[in-house]
Amino acid sequence: MAFDNRRLADLAAHDAFIQRHNGPGDEDVATMLASLDMDSLDTLVQRTVPADIRMDRELNLDPPRSEAEALDYLKRLARQNRVAKSYIGQGYHDTHLPQVIQRNVLENPGWYTAYTPYQPEIAQGRLEGLLNFQQMVMDLTGMDLANASLLDEATAAAEAMALCRRANKKAKSDVFFIADNVLPQTLDVVRTRAAYFGFELLVAPVEELADADVFGALLQYPGDGGQVRDMAPLLEAAKDRGVMTCVAADIMSLVLLKEPGALGADIVVGSSQRFGVPMGYGGPHAAFFATTDKLKRSIPGRIIGVSRDTRGNPALRMAMQTREQHIRREKATSNICTAQALLANIAGFYAVYHGAEGLRTIAGRIHRLTTLLAMGLEEKGVALAHDSWFDTLRLTGVDAGKIHGRAMTHEINLRYFPGGDVAVSLDETTTAHDLDTLFDVLLGEEHGLSVSGLDERAIAESRTGIPAACRRESAFLTHPTFQRYRSETEMLRYLKRLENKDLSLTHAMIPLGSCTMKLNATSEMVPITWPEFAGIHPFAPRDQVAGYRQMIDELAAFLVEITGYDHISMQPNSGAQGEYAGLVAIRRYQASVGEGHRDVCLIPSSAHGTNPASAAMVQMKVVVVECDTFGNIDLADLRRKAEAHSANLSAIMITYPSTHGVFEQSVREVCEIVHQHGGQVYVDGANMNAQVGLTRPGDFGGDVSHLNLHKTFCIPHGGGGPGMGPIGVKAHLAPFVSNHVVTPIDGVNADCGAVSAAAFGSAAILPISWAYIKMMGAKGLRRATELAILNANYVAKRLEDHYPVLYKGVNGTVAHECIIDIRPLKSSSGISEEDIAKRLMDYGFHAPTMSFPVPGTLMIEPTESESRYEIDRFCDAMIAIREEIANVERGEWPVDDNPLTRAPHTMADLMDAAWKRPYSRELGAFPSPAVKAAKIWPAVNRVDNVFGDRQLICSCPSIDEYRD
Amino acid sequence: MAFDNRRLADLAAHDAFIQRHNGPGDEDVATMLASLDMDSLDTLVQRTVPADIRMDRELNLDPPRSEAEALDYLKRLARQNRVAKSYIGQGYHDTHLPQVIQRNVLENPGWYTAYTPYQPEIAQGRLEGLLNFQQMVMDLTGMDLANASLLDEATAAAEAMALCRRANKKAKSDVFFIADNVLPQTLDVVRTRAAYFGFELLVAPVEELADADVFGALLQYPGDGGQVRDMAPLLEAAKDRGVMTCVAADIMSLVLLKEPGALGADIVVGSSQRFGVPMGYGGPHAAFFATTDKLKRSIPGRIIGVSRDTRGNPALRMAMQTREQHIRREKATSNICTAQALLANIAGFYAVYHGAEGLRTIAGRIHRLTTLLAMGLEEKGVALAHDSWFDTLRLTGVDAGKIHGRAMTHEINLRYFPGGDVAVSLDETTTAHDLDTLFDVLLGEEHGLSVSGLDERAIAESRTGIPAACRRESAFLTHPTFQRYRSETEMLRYLKRLENKDLSLTHAMIPLGSCTMKLNATSEMVPITWPEFAGIHPFAPRDQVAGYRQMIDELAAFLVEITGYDHISMQPNSGAQGEYAGLVAIRRYQASVGEGHRDVCLIPSSAHGTNPASAAMVQMKVVVVECDTFGNIDLADLRRKAEAHSANLSAIMITYPSTHGVFEQSVREVCEIVHQHGGQVYVDGANMNAQVGLTRPGDFGGDVSHLNLHKTFCIPHGGGGPGMGPIGVKAHLAPFVSNHVVTPIDGVNADCGAVSAAAFGSAAILPISWAYIKMMGAKGLRRATELAILNANYVAKRLEDHYPVLYKGVNGTVAHECIIDIRPLKSSSGISEEDIAKRLMDYGFHAPTMSFPVPGTLMIEPTESESRYEIDRFCDAMIAIREEIANVERGEWPVDDNPLTRAPHTMADLMDAAWKRPYSRELGAFPSPAVKAAKIWPAVNRVDNVFGDRQLICSCPSIDEYRD
Repeated sequence: MAFDNRRLADLAAHDAFIQRHNGPGDEDVATMLASLDMDSLDTLVQRTVPADIRMDRELNLDPPRSEAEALDYLKRLARQNRVAKSYIGQGYHDTHLPQVIQRNVLENPGWYTAYTPYQPEIAQGRLEGLLNFQQMVMDLTGMDLANASLLDEATAAAEAMALCRRANKKAKSDVFFIADNVLPQTLDVVRTRAAYFGFELLVAPVEELADADVFGALLQYPGDGGQVRDMAPLLEAAKDRGVMTCVAADIMSLVLLKEPGALGADIVVGSSQRFGVPMGYGGPHAAFFATTDKLKRSIPGRIIGVSRDTRGNPALRMAMQTREQHIRREKATSNICTAQALLANIAGFYAVYHGAEGLRTIAGRIHRLTTLLAMGLEEKGVALAHDSWFDTLRLTGVDAGKIHGRAMTHEINLRYFPGGDVAVSLDETTTAHDLDTLFDVLLGEEHGLSVSGLDERAIAESRTGIPAACRRESAFLTHPTFQRYRSETEMLRYLKRLENKDLSLTHAMIPLGSCTMKLNATSEMVPITWPEFAGIHPFAPRDQVAGYRQMIDELAAFLVEITGYDHISMQPNSGAQGEYAGLVAIRRYQASVGEGHRDVCLIPSSAHGTNPASAAMVQMKVVVVECDTFGNIDLADLRRKAEAHSANLSAIMITYPSTHGVFEQSVREVCEIVHQHGGQVYVDGANMNAQVGLTRPGDFGGDVSHLNLHKTFCIPHGGGGPGMGPIGVKAHLAPFVSNHVVTPIDGVNADCGAVSAAAFGSAAILPISWAYIKMMGAKGLRRATELAILNANYVAKRLEDHYPVLYKGVNGTVAHECIIDIRPLKSSSGISEEDIAKRLMDYGFHAPTMSFPVPGTLMIEPTESESRYEIDRFCDAMIAIREEIANVERGEWPVDDNPLTRAPHTMADLMDAAWKRPYSRELGAFPSPAVKAAKIWPAVNRVDNVFGDRQLICSCPSIDEYRD
Repeated sequence: MAFDNRRLADLAAHDAFIQRHNGPGDEDVATMLASLDMDSLDTLVQRTVPADIRMDRELNLDPPRSEAEALDYLKRLARQNRVAKSYIGQGYHDTHLPQVIQRNVLENPGWYTAYTPYQPEIAQGRLEGLLNFQQMVMDLTGMDLANASLLDEATAAAEAMALCRRANKKAKSDVFFIADNVLPQTLDVVRTRAAYFGFELLVAPVEELADADVFGALLQYPGDGGQVRDMAPLLEAAKDRGVMTCVAADIMSLVLLKEPGALGADIVVGSSQRFGVPMGYGGPHAAFFATTDKLKRSIPGRIIGVSRDTRGNPALRMAMQTREQHIRREKATSNICTAQALLANIAGFYAVYHGAEGLRTIAGRIHRLTTLLAMGLEEKGVALAHDSWFDTLRLTGVDAGKIHGRAMTHEINLRYFPGGDVAVSLDETTTAHDLDTLFDVLLGEEHGLSVSGLDERAIAESRTGIPAACRRESAFLTHPTFQRYRSETEMLRYLKRLENKDLSLTHAMIPLGSCTMKLNATSEMVPITWPEFAGIHPFAPRDQVAGYRQMIDELAAFLVEITGYDHISMQPNSGAQGEYAGLVAIRRYQASVGEGHRDVCLIPSSAHGTNPASAAMVQMKVVVVECDTFGNIDLADLRRKAEAHSANLSAIMITYPSTHGVFEQSVREVCEIVHQHGGQVYVDGANMNAQVGLTRPGDFGGDVSHLNLHKTFCIPHGGGGPGMGPIGVKAHLAPFVSNHVVTPIDGVNADCGAVSAAAFGSAAILPISWAYIKMMGAKGLRRATELAILNANYVAKRLEDHYPVLYKGVNGTVAHECIIDIRPLKSSSGISEEDIAKRLMDYGFHAPTMSFPVPGTLMIEPTESESRYEIDRFCDAMIAIREEIANVERGEWPVDDNPLTRAPHTMADLMDAAWKRPYSRELGAFPSPAVKAAKIWPAVNRVDNVFGDRQLICSCPSIDEYRD
């Protein structure tokens, strides 16, 4: 046999990752193309992507790097960050993420690749984790209800303002009060939001709330400088005057401080970051949002609630889904449609693992160390701005320059206020030794103070910085879940037990139309827990974050090339927030050229509900453009409406390929029509995965797009968040994207407010997208797009004899997803798309997207990462289900007693001593050979949504309720 | 409410890890003590541990560190290692462990906390992984059979020598031939082993095998200097002369080289390290061992085989277990009783992920780069020792000093031979850029060579270093398993599917007497994949391993303090190897004082079978000492036998507490008797977990002990390895422990041979034990021991009304484990200990140790890490099972048709349309509420061991066989 005489370059591993990311190998591709009667991927692309928008060149990106090379490169970048000890505080604190949680949740694909728990029967694990989070927030804030997290504290505060207005319709004022010791980045975001809601802000010392004529108010607890004051009188007075009150609170302080609920707050928001979640240069972190019972049906975001399944057993699910923004559309005051599930789960587990006792020790230590610091400073004559504190001291009248010099020597970051004050925030990681160093830095080397000496005196004098009226008196975390998992072994088993209840990408394909559940490669995920990325404060000095900045700049350059835009704003930390930021940029730009009156937003009827909600949030008037029977934008209707609203046309929002999964031929013309009438074109990036390397929105007419990095660019869905939604813009919009009050962004107008708490959103997860692009290169990215389209067309082909496939392009192909119509079957059999979705669980699959964009349909997106083997397995299941439906059609099975309407089947079903169904146990639970080899059991039977929404319970049930 | 006025030290987290490691909290301890009618742990200890051996002080160790502190400290140590680029070769090569395998196997407690697969019904996942490993080895070596791994290449070679002798009884010679180009560390280990087997070694050029009068021979392929020669003629001639032949082969080379099976080898051994397993300063790695079919029933170590379950479905299990050393005892020629399961699985998965095509590219690239290196050197007139190569070149007549200087500048390690030759071994991580650097280093900066130019020429000239006769012609890895998992998504799902078939510590307690399945804390596990530990070659220069050395020295110092010995030898990489090393040290010591004739080893009848096997391997004569009816050593019998053998008494081997789980009162006297007769005392460290902080073998009379770091000191069992078995010795034995030919060990006599391939055994896992001790401190370790004893006594108490508890101490307590007697039940009901073991699976538990040390019993060791909750759950299950047995006793269930004899129950059972058993489906599979909440399904029904051993199949079955 001849030896291997290939060229060295061909023996190299440079393209190795491409074949790891993509599911189908060369042989599979040939087979699949043959089934479509095509000879090459080029043919498929030519028949699918309109010629007038097709790229005629390869993307200009570096050649693909192997996994090892990319990680080496990124490690070098990471080492350009300097991880200083941070005492900056201001909403971000260092923390110890317990290793058992880091390894088994944050670094475990069983947790991070799961989807939003829309299918609760196969999501009870993370639903329980989120319920823990809600319970923890309720307990610590003293509120009746909490949601399952929001994006960050600043946007949570903005949502609180909107809720105040919604819930306080009788208030005549349109002014919202903000205490002047609210965190600056929170004020920045709230200011942006208020401007487009048409609210006026009154920023003033907290005392002035007493007689302010406002509809609501936001206070900070403790205040930005660290002060702890009894706000009960102010909050009570406000309530008496019909003013809704929100408190932005530090979650660790609430362990020791009187809970805001007891002070009289209507809404409490904050960040749970310091409960175990790395600072990560700003995120992702889970914000919390808690309210009184009165507001429970108005609370924004997702809420996990307790319901029951068809056997009457308790079962969790997302409550009040019908209330989600996608049905509110143009009346929306919020477009929030995600959570930070992974981070909320981590924060919840942190509380589970420590319990109340552990948290009291941690918060007690932080506070004691702060008290000792205060005592030492007092002793040395340093003036403090406040005589109360939890973990933060603000020093006045000091020589900030000298302190800064000494701090740099010790690699310590402090907070420096304009005017010369210096603040120090302690956290869980601070030790007595650190305190020694802090004295050196703040006082100079020869101070002579001893921490243990101060401690003796503090004990003897019972010193504390917390005023008596502000001390917490109530118990918290009393539920058994927060008491049982104290050893690592018990905690590990709890985490694994929850994980094993859920279906994730580690089990099977999750064929969600428009959600692009592709591979989240390990090499992409590894860097996010490197300390050089995880340990950075978002407001760290610029010279400490050179690695982050270069990585972000490189990623932005990649995205510029991929999209054809001129600039990327990396701030928005969700897709919806990207939409908002993009529309705000349009409004700012139009105002700058004297066209601030333009306020009409055209939106096709097929649009995702977030589009009109976003438009409503910037006070645009939504005008719906109809679609034709093929699902495409009706050009005639578009022309009519563009003309009718020509004077006031601000923008159009389109999705490309359309939400129907089709590359509309007319997209260039659509853009031209809108431009002719002075409007801007917003191209929703949800379906970017069908475009990369084949076409660019910036080329065919887009002015701005958001990119769902958690879809196209491999950030995992985390069981319902995090995500990232940076926006690409044309040059004329670039000065109008989000700026940031603490970390100004180059090239953006100074008066542009922020949309997120941190300048670069959830910066810690950007290495994922960076690594993906770096390892794929131009060829790999294009290949991925082609295979995504191939896989979808293959699915359509395999299913079309069994289910009608709706919406195809002019040459009979679909884009990267396909829609099958269940309505005819519903008529003929009584079986619904929901029955099919639940039945798919028995076959080991997550359901496709249900009833979007068309009610009564299923939208299937396989992505390029699924192999032909897996796609065939899925299609086999769908075809077998069709046969089952035929049995119902033929009357062999009653419509209310068949494997579909009784799906999903659980172990409890199989245990039934008497089995009186018209089908066998085996057919019920083990309908395919693959299932026998690796069964994924739904943890509960079908969940009753209506019951749960009527009896809204969003706290942990007592253990008894779980008993048989 | 008063604020928290605790002292800062009490608010600190320093003791945090202790409560994470230990299961029972303070309240649990009080409850459990009360159930034993005791008031404190001190009382329990006083009643359990004999007064004359109890420590009267605390261990002298640093105070406990928190998890973060310990990791910080260890990171600082790790940074003192310098990770140079290694071209040393010599059996160890850098490699890319695919990240998906690293994260989901090596860093996943679902894999690393599993036990040896003695219970195959809940171990099918890792059994399949190991079968893949065997198949891979068979394919690459071209042999008929392979085992599931051995400890390292050197010990595998020693085992091969022993097998040659066993299988070649007709050979008259006691001489074993070793080619002089066998790896030096292999020769070192084989030499030690041969000395005590009484074999002579003939080390000579390979040609001399042609007319050597020997029983067997060991050759290296490629040779130590890199030469690739056709050994077929030599091997065939040897066979004709009745000489058994072993080939030690490089696994990566076998991708391109003719397989040794085709050359005529009887046995092939080697290391699978370079298939994805980090070098880790020497280990752990999986060695392989493959033989012809003729030798299949003599192969040492564990073998995975295919059998069937009670439903006739294929099922894997360890084959020929009855053949394991524990029944061979004093006739043993091997004491091997473990494997490197975790590492074998990783190497197997590496092959699964790459497949034959991927491996051909990797090996082809390595070989091509080596060829280019050779061409460049030739061009520059550098002489090579050999004109053939796979990946290694030996340069002769070079200026080694200058090369060394340049290499150090580039942070490159080469191999320097005595005499001035320099060798370079390339590996998977070598790039064209590295080759440039190598030319610079080997030739000096101005050489003018271009890698791409050389490549062009190589292609044109079809250059290769592999002689035509040595080229591989046969296919390999043709089984579908090695072809299907090419994308990361498919691989991830495969790994998770296998993981989810197995029960590990992530699910439930594994109450194995004497195996100490305690917590393997994440913080202990995290450092082993740090590059500063993982990336170090075992023969790296000493100045690059300062961190490793300090960590090892610190760990040794901890263990000295814990055991009371004077010195620790860190070389043995399993407990059995520790025994061997300890006995060798005794023999060497005795020889050094003129008592080399002493060759009698006393061993109590209760001993683990490894003890007599180890004694036999050093040519000691085993004399059994009887135990009394309480399970204790019969002192009278001991005195009799010690006297009878006084002149020749070499040693006694005892286990303490005894294998019966009792602190024998007489241990000090036992040691004294043996010492009086000139013998040495070997204390088996298997039960060290009951001693730490309470008593020390070095104080009560031990001269030497091995320590199972994978039991007492938290190294995970890895599903059947790795482990570490360092030995503690008194000062007089210290010069006689293992030395190492490449890395001499301070204080050890120069003529002491090695027992392992690497000087510090499996050094990469030592940080686990280091971290455990560092985080527990003296107080924590003692507390752990006390709780281990408490938990065992609590189990005994709860079960004693239901099962007879055998063997208690004088005050009615047990040590850290307890034995329950199933024999009376067997008589009264026909239900066996195996039935109970299998039935426990239905309840979600792994069985206790079966029939050791007493047939017909179960030995239960809960360890300190199990919570009262979990122990109660286990005891509840055992009590419920006793009730089920009572049903059989009463005749309510037939002895052959009841939940016990039909256990374990599988999903297949539940699917049976007709259920004609006298108990319900629910009772069968869901016998307890805990099981309903989190069911762990056995993947197969009870496995038929006899069938599998008769039809020995140890390769991957065809896919069809798995079909229904």
